[in-house]
Amino acid sequence: MRHAAQSLLEHQQILILCHQDPDGDTLGSGFALCEALRGLGKAVKVLCDSFPPQFSFLYPKTPSQVLSQPFVVAVDVADERLLGERLRRYAGNVDLCIDHHPSNTLYARQTLLESQAAATAEILVRLLDVMGVPLTRRIATGLYTGISTDTGCFKFSNTTAQLHRTAARLMETGIDTYRINRRMFDIKSKGRIAIERMVLDTVRYYYGGTCALIYITQEMVEKAGATQAELGTLSSLPRQIEGVEIGVTLRQRGDSFKVSVHTGGTLDAAALCAKLGGGGHFRAAGCVIRAPLPQAVRTLVELIGLELARARSPLAGQASPRKIPSSPKLLD
Amino acid sequence: MRHAAQSLLEHQQILILCHQDPDGDTLGSGFALCEALRGLGKAVKVLCDSFPPQFSFLYPKTPSQVLSQPFVVAVDVADERLLGERLRRYAGNVDLCIDHHPSNTLYARQTLLESQAAATAEILVRLLDVMGVPLTRRIATGLYTGISTDTGCFKFSNTTAQLHRTAARLMETGIDTYRINRRMFDIKSKGRIAIERMVLDTVRYYYGGTCALIYITQEMVEKAGATQAELGTLSSLPRQIEGVEIGVTLRQRGDSFKVSVHTGGTLDAAALCAKLGGGGHFRAAGCVIRAPLPQAVRTLVELIGLELARARSPLAGQASPRKIPSSPKLLD
Repeated sequence: MRHAAQSLLEHQQILILCHQDPDGDTLGSGFALCEALRGLGKAVKVLCDSFPPQFSFLYPKTPSQVLSQPFVVAVDVADERLLGERLRRYAGNVDLCIDHHPSNTLYARQTLLESQAAATAEILVRLLDVMGVPLTRRIATGLYTGISTDTGCFKFSNTTAQLHRTAARLMETGIDTYRINRRMFDIKSKGRIAIERMVLDTVRYYYGGTCALIYITQEMVEKAGATQAELGTLSSLPRQIEGVEIGVTLRQRGDSFKVSVHTGGTLDAAALCAKLGGGGHFRAAGCVIRAPLPQAVRTLVELIGLELARARSPLAGQASPRKIPSSPKLLD
Repeated sequence: MRHAAQSLLEHQQILILCHQDPDGDTLGSGFALCEALRGLGKAVKVLCDSFPPQFSFLYPKTPSQVLSQPFVVAVDVADERLLGERLRRYAGNVDLCIDHHPSNTLYARQTLLESQAAATAEILVRLLDVMGVPLTRRIATGLYTGISTDTGCFKFSNTTAQLHRTAARLMETGIDTYRINRRMFDIKSKGRIAIERMVLDTVRYYYGGTCALIYITQEMVEKAGATQAELGTLSSLPRQIEGVEIGVTLRQRGDSFKVSVHTGGTLDAAALCAKLGGGGHFRAAGCVIRAPLPQAVRTLVELIGLELARARSPLAGQASPRKIPSSPKLLD
């Protein structure tokens, strides 16, 4: 922390890099750090593969300054490959990385990694304290956005008592958290509303309602006029349904389906996906199935049935599957 | 505050009343207070018109104690009529009311009203401090539930820095806020999913997408198997759509439609609804239209068009409506 603070204080020209498909944490942290360093009289520029309009309230009004030989800082970027196509030239050339992802590949010359932090923005609050930079309203707007988006507005299990205290400090600068959160969580584009409508039409229940499945075809996405960003959180939908332990989302990519499986903990999502050549975590995993939709669905539902029977068996892991509560209803 | 604390400390038999159609604040506050008072060795009972299963984690395992001549406390109940049918006999007989609604009718013998508080649970945190009752995990679960649900999980504009500090204190008792919030915000019943799907099918845009309208018929509700509680937040949907300034929801009640109008502030929802015999606030108002659906929609859309033209006119309030961006597309 002190080392990172010192590096930032020492340099006069600083370039900040965010990750591709940017979220509130990478952009919020990036622009908050930019604001803080500009306040110290430094020349600072933020680069990202794209700057989506939904985050426009974070973007500074003063133009970026031209930098020669800057000190390069990556924020919330776990892997150089996540810089994306447009920032590819900075791979191998990052001086300092500030991040909270446990999967960080330690690609930078210096890394400030706090994997217990809920967001990179949370680390930055402490870093700015160490640097002696007071929180202004503009700095706090970025940091609050990062914290709020990475915790689902204080809903996820990464939210701590300390994080609420940090949020209190940020709010005391006078930021409009209602406006930020409305923009980050409530407002849905017309494309998103259209795709949500179509996706809700695809919900199918299996095994007495303990498993729910949805799918998104390319035709649906085109018809809705939805962008990639607008599809983001759809895969969490099946597991939001009451009584659903296993939520499955199939998303078409050419002649394949990208499958994501979310479970409530009774079934190992990673083990299930591994059987189809995929992997992931216990509660969230993925795989790819190269088959037409009805066949992909059948494969998944049958496999889930076997896993459910195995999980329920008193001799779990052995060959005595119990009867499955209800037979899978397949798509036509 | 001191007076209320003293009354609660003085009495040994206390009956706590919650409001009908209970929410997280009335039940969370009620059971937190019950827990706190039982911890002081008192006989305490919580009554409510209904105890919905979604709040079952708040309900104590120890049975209610029989009370004779109890001290009666209403929590989060703004008006005696909100006690509901089953608790009607307590109207005129409430000793202490603890509430944060500015509309409180001051019906109780003694009222602890803090209309600046985001939730009744927030007042209770301070009240328990004054009473010298330490926060336990069970008490904190109720109070956190009240605060979280009444602020949309720290999203609404009633969220303050102080409230985040209070949340931090409650979390430090070791409560599982992830589980609480998942239950309060994320989990949707199968009936809710079904009605949401149908309602999304009804979304219509008018006036260049600045106005969105949805409707819910009795047939849809029956087909989805949705309960009244599951329809609750649907009327906020239209205003969640990007670019929508006026969100309109029509809900069938017999041969009428209950209309709710939400605006972003450019149009006076109360003035609009007043023209149809209704009323409410600047940003949220309602009215009832007794007409078949297509006619009700036409009436509303035309009236909104006139109001929009008036609002855009440089001589607002006078008779020179500007051209409306696009003509209303009506339902068949």
